[in-house]
Amino acid sequence: MTSRPDTPLLDTVDTPTDLRKLKPEQLRQLSDELRNEMISAVGSTGGHLGSGLGVVELTVAIHYVFNTPEDRLIWDVGHQCYPHKILTGRRDRIRTLRQGGGLSGFTKRSESEFDPFGAAHSSTSISAGLGFAVANKLNDKPGRGIAVIGDGAMSAGMAYEAMNNAEQAGNRLVVILNDNDMSIAPPVGGLSGYLARLISSSEYLGLRSLASKMTAKLSRRVHKSLGTVESHTRGMVTGGTLFEELGFYYVGPIDGHNLEHLIPVLENVRDAEEGPILIHVRTVKGKGYAPAENSADKYHGVAKFDVVSGKQDKGPGGGPPNYQNVFGETLAKLAETDPKICAITAAMPSGTGVDKFAQAHPDRAFDVGIAEQHGVTFAAGLAAQGMRPFAAIYSTFLQRAYDQIVHDVAIQNLPVRFAIDRAGLVGADGATHAGSFDVTYLATLPNFVVMAAADEAELAHMTYTAAEYDDGPIAFRYPRGVGTGVPIPEELEKLEIGKGRVLREGNKVALLSLGTRLAESLKAADELEAKGLSTTVADLRFAKPLDTVLIERLMRTHEAVITIEEAAIGGLGAHVLTFASDNGLTDAGLKIRTMRLPDMFQDQDAPHKQYDQAGLNAPDIVETVLKALRHNSAGIEEARA
Amino acid sequence: MTSRPDTPLLDTVDTPTDLRKLKPEQLRQLSDELRNEMISAVGSTGGHLGSGLGVVELTVAIHYVFNTPEDRLIWDVGHQCYPHKILTGRRDRIRTLRQGGGLSGFTKRSESEFDPFGAAHSSTSISAGLGFAVANKLNDKPGRGIAVIGDGAMSAGMAYEAMNNAEQAGNRLVVILNDNDMSIAPPVGGLSGYLARLISSSEYLGLRSLASKMTAKLSRRVHKSLGTVESHTRGMVTGGTLFEELGFYYVGPIDGHNLEHLIPVLENVRDAEEGPILIHVRTVKGKGYAPAENSADKYHGVAKFDVVSGKQDKGPGGGPPNYQNVFGETLAKLAETDPKICAITAAMPSGTGVDKFAQAHPDRAFDVGIAEQHGVTFAAGLAAQGMRPFAAIYSTFLQRAYDQIVHDVAIQNLPVRFAIDRAGLVGADGATHAGSFDVTYLATLPNFVVMAAADEAELAHMTYTAAEYDDGPIAFRYPRGVGTGVPIPEELEKLEIGKGRVLREGNKVALLSLGTRLAESLKAADELEAKGLSTTVADLRFAKPLDTVLIERLMRTHEAVITIEEAAIGGLGAHVLTFASDNGLTDAGLKIRTMRLPDMFQDQDAPHKQYDQAGLNAPDIVETVLKALRHNSAGIEEARA
Repeated sequence: MTSRPDTPLLDTVDTPTDLRKLKPEQLRQLSDELRNEMISAVGSTGGHLGSGLGVVELTVAIHYVFNTPEDRLIWDVGHQCYPHKILTGRRDRIRTLRQGGGLSGFTKRSESEFDPFGAAHSSTSISAGLGFAVANKLNDKPGRGIAVIGDGAMSAGMAYEAMNNAEQAGNRLVVILNDNDMSIAPPVGGLSGYLARLISSSEYLGLRSLASKMTAKLSRRVHKSLGTVESHTRGMVTGGTLFEELGFYYVGPIDGHNLEHLIPVLENVRDAEEGPILIHVRTVKGKGYAPAENSADKYHGVAKFDVVSGKQDKGPGGGPPNYQNVFGETLAKLAETDPKICAITAAMPSGTGVDKFAQAHPDRAFDVGIAEQHGVTFAAGLAAQGMRPFAAIYSTFLQRAYDQIVHDVAIQNLPVRFAIDRAGLVGADGATHAGSFDVTYLATLPNFVVMAAADEAELAHMTYTAAEYDDGPIAFRYPRGVGTGVPIPEELEKLEIGKGRVLREGNKVALLSLGTRLAESLKAADELEAKGLSTTVADLRFAKPLDTVLIERLMRTHEAVITIEEAAIGGLGAHVLTFASDNGLTDAGLKIRTMRLPDMFQDQDAPHKQYDQAGLNAPDIVETVLKALRHNSAGIEEARA
Repeated sequence: MTSRPDTPLLDTVDTPTDLRKLKPEQLRQLSDELRNEMISAVGSTGGHLGSGLGVVELTVAIHYVFNTPEDRLIWDVGHQCYPHKILTGRRDRIRTLRQGGGLSGFTKRSESEFDPFGAAHSSTSISAGLGFAVANKLNDKPGRGIAVIGDGAMSAGMAYEAMNNAEQAGNRLVVILNDNDMSIAPPVGGLSGYLARLISSSEYLGLRSLASKMTAKLSRRVHKSLGTVESHTRGMVTGGTLFEELGFYYVGPIDGHNLEHLIPVLENVRDAEEGPILIHVRTVKGKGYAPAENSADKYHGVAKFDVVSGKQDKGPGGGPPNYQNVFGETLAKLAETDPKICAITAAMPSGTGVDKFAQAHPDRAFDVGIAEQHGVTFAAGLAAQGMRPFAAIYSTFLQRAYDQIVHDVAIQNLPVRFAIDRAGLVGADGATHAGSFDVTYLATLPNFVVMAAADEAELAHMTYTAAEYDDGPIAFRYPRGVGTGVPIPEELEKLEIGKGRVLREGNKVALLSLGTRLAESLKAADELEAKGLSTTVADLRFAKPLDTVLIERLMRTHEAVITIEEAAIGGLGAHVLTFASDNGLTDAGLKIRTMRLPDMFQDQDAPHKQYDQAGLNAPDIVETVLKALRHNSAGIEEARA
């Protein structure tokens, strides 16, 4: 649709080897063409735009100066890697980004040797880079670890842990702090204030003085002539003491869009004999594309858009609401009459719907930054002091706080509410963002209540139920995207803990659904009835505690019982099987099957294709039932009638 | 045995209310008596000694100055809380520490209102304290959060995340950094160097000048007369810039054993109108007890000991080796011929046996500090660069790195080896240290291999197997404490992945054991045979991948199949049940039962009592078998014959 940009110089560059043949004065043009190519590509695919636009010059400069892929370049989070993909042999597939069979929206080891470490969750890059650096040091091989990490990602404790360990790497580790004063939302906390002070307290130095200062500090020859290097001499250009105290040489701040500064600084760092070095680069998210620069979120994640106008193709609108907004609005409403309710998000105010809550109750909304560990224990502290905290965190990111969930919440039986968004498959974001394991890792914990919402009305009821439940930890999971279109009742229902509901009563086959696959279960029941198989459909609502009364009744009165959930092994199915075997309910030859996510990490694809791959649609349910019924009492499948 | 110390003043103090009636000049004597009482108590019970001795004066001073329990005092990790327990109404039970039915060795909410937040894992205190502070602020109630945290615990990212969020608490949050240059082992990393520089670059200030400086900095009245408070004026007594950059007022360093300094400093902080405040207190671990002060580990954790000599009652010796040492020594030996092997520990070099490895291969041993998240991703980086890293981490602490296990290791299918110590029940350390969930949270992940060792010879074989396995992540778990006494073969065996072994072949009952309960399974088989029930015993070795060939054969040839594991629901039993139901093996009316840890957090007790409570001993297995066999095909238990 949109015509491709004219990119004569970029057309000559397939890999960094080609790039390094260019003259420095050609890099400006290359960067401009690269930026245009990226805008054009994302315009046709959608994806992460602002982050990549901010690092176009940095991407060019790093590959120009350093010896990738021998130097191991790691893009933290990875959503800023599109320019990098274009420059590292993947330009021909750049318009397949985030699509089934196409390029991942993140870095990925299986895609290219230029992606030595995949990412998608934040703040892993320094640890990984240190691993590369130390391995090469042990083996006396060349090659650095180069981590490019944003200021938002620096708020995660993991980045700090890695910096605290970095000194051993010497000059084999380079950390490039890409400071754009944004992660997805504006950053929070003491560190962001610190970085702002660093920036405001110093001018960008002129090239000549910068280079000469760096040479003086980073060359061992010079050091030797000066005698022993004192650790307190590490302060380089300006400030940077926080990083220096952790053992880094600090260089910066540097204008990350000025190639005439970037190239010589990186060259100096490359040739330095001391380290580790942290380069503080200042960039603008969305740089060079006015609609992005002028947008509040800098076009962090976008749908397909028109390149000239910047207008995103967000579909017809007017459909069912997003789950996240149902949660946020329901909680905001409940909080009008309940002053104990508060909400915690870890740098995802709009993604979790906590922004809706914050608008209504700003003093009770807490964005802790990319800091899930702290966020959960902070919530535990609030709960211990009598508040009713909701920790609203994506399923995949909640993994970051697993020990805090166990140690601070479950063992102490504190009533922290976990609103788990993006549970199950997530489409274009792929395996790294799928929320597959939460039912398993939560339901194994004593004291926990674990619910899953079948639709947005159920989500509203569960939000209310969780608010009213003060006896211990309670979690409710719900999927990414828009609801099913059911109306949300004015009067919310306080669900009875550990009780499911029967939507349809039969007597031969029972389908026990948890969460999102209820609609497919009902469809499957229609098909089964059409085949003469009387089918019960229950929405169990709770993975823990199980509705053992209902489950036992259905097991004693049906020939086959099938569980269905959008979660990995160890979840609902495992709990139902365990209950059944504990109580001898299988002894009589009952046919039980469990349907769940497959034992694989599913790549990005359209949601319906992911469900097909997982085998969790109505035809899969029907097939599972029929196959189970064909099994004879010797456990051998009989020939089809 | 040891006579009780003479404690006339302490005898008058049951709670902090009594303490606050004393005159300041009496606190020295009280501290001395408290120290003696603690030494006497731990001499008779064993437990954590050095940490508590280091904070005797600090404990007295905090309770004297602050209004506990309204002010919420949180001891990070909690193992330094014995003096606190003595002063807060629990002196009468102090000689029941860490015993069944006795006081916990850590802080615990259910024990006392003076324990507002339980701990045992490190670095949670600032987050929890912030939760208390913010809750009180929202409700306009009095009461601060006071977190006492060691320098070792400060290396964990979670502490940094919390500091980064602390500014909102104002003067309601007080962090006391207890700097003793030790956690369990000496601390590592850039932060510890920083703290050492802070200490060495400054003298302890005299009382008068300290107090006057603090008053000037922390009183709003004074501030107001000076005009607006500038953020860069926060530097207080010396240095402290790292904490100041994160938004704290820094006070220190202060001699933590000098009550004449501690009391007025804490009073000033209590009355300050600005915050949050970090007080840097310097203490000596083991203070006041020469055997502890002179020991390398400062008597961190001790057995019962003689108070006069300090000699610990370590039992007869000469028995089987600890599992951790079998692991460390085996790995060290393998590394002699395999230059790719390296080992990572998170501040537990001796607890994990990595110290044995480090002695032989210092350049390939990495102590990352209390930083499991970084440690695992660092290991992933090493693996991605071709090394063979072993991350040796206690089961319970590995929870800290769950997202890194999923995102950096499993999704990328990198061959990181996880040596999981302290798996299962752990005796005196209780619920917070039990390793109950690892089988569940790892076996649910695609790509993972999960093994469990039945004895120390198996552990050696599994260490070797893991070293040789380069196809993806592999974990092996083993228990706390000494082995079973089996000889460890010179020639190690490379186990076939996903294959179990049959130790005893029968035809009516099959016991499928994973890990430690194998000996009890064999005992149970003896008893079952004595009752005429022919019994097979298999050691499955692998929770994932399952030995499906063996399991199917046993299911098809036995009347009852029982799984036994020292792990929570969702582990081996769930995987076996899922395999069986997926394949229709239960359809024929097979009696399957799964034995596992109960759905509760078990308190500290003698290990054999914990196993009794869990129902995982031979008589429990026999009973489970007999009960299953009595079940008729209607799933109803028949009357005993």
